[in-house]
Amino acid sequence: MTETSTGQGALSTEDCWDVLRHREFGRLAYVIDGAPTIVPINYVVDGARLVFRTTDGTKLHNIMADHRVAFEVDEIDDGNEIGTSVVVRGEAHLLPADEEFRIEQVGLRAWLGPDRPILVAIEPNEITGRRYRLRRPWRRMSR
Amino acid sequence: MTETSTGQGALSTEDCWDVLRHREFGRLAYVIDGAPTIVPINYVVDGARLVFRTTDGTKLHNIMADHRVAFEVDEIDDGNEIGTSVVVRGEAHLLPADEEFRIEQVGLRAWLGPDRPILVAIEPNEITGRRYRLRRPWRRMSR
Repeated sequence: MTETSTGQGALSTEDCWDVLRHREFGRLAYVIDGAPTIVPINYVVDGARLVFRTTDGTKLHNIMADHRVAFEVDEIDDGNEIGTSVVVRGEAHLLPADEEFRIEQVGLRAWLGPDRPILVAIEPNEITGRRYRLRRPWRRMSR
Repeated sequence: MTETSTGQGALSTEDCWDVLRHREFGRLAYVIDGAPTIVPINYVVDGARLVFRTTDGTKLHNIMADHRVAFEVDEIDDGNEIGTSVVVRGEAHLLPADEEFRIEQVGLRAWLGPDRPILVAIEPNEITGRRYRLRRPWRRMSR
């Protein structure tokens, strides 16, 4: 972090990976006909990439047409009034079939909806994170 | 909801607005040079639109170059193992100056970072939401 360890500021890449490894739910953004959309996904960190499950539906079709994606995880620590957000920008690709068995062992299951047999890997080009001291003075008002 | 009130399925538009009104933190996706990115924002619902604060920096510049945005809020109820996600797709525009005073009264403050004096409204073209029964069987394992 560029400022203090408990305050706000940019996270180092290593701190970003720590956040990514400790979360399991985020949001994937991709582009359809030039317009952005977002879907929630659960994921695992696999080495230097993220892996999630999907069906062969609209989401996958659009990602494969334009591999560029963004992915975000965040958390708000109400007690300390600290918010943390990590954004990964990169490319999404089908996981090679010969790697699927290994990911099965990681225990990645799709939380959301029906079976999602297809594994997709996000290869990061850029990882940025920030920690914010939340400016919510009303949370400190006496009740 | 199309299925049961406690199960999974698509949310009605009214249910989506209920979720949006009860949350105050989400993620904005927009497109830079054809690639998606995401930023966390806090927001308020103002009638049939969402309003957030920003600076006059990169985010605003890019949104104004291409007004199309997507916005997502979600929540996970661990007790009931239910996840809810609402996605708004629409256009973002600077709020007219003569409406700023009214929004001040709503009490919208930027939680994140320094002063963000510029108000931006997201006018939804499409609002969709889903409630998911989370498929996390390991959460029910005996400990």
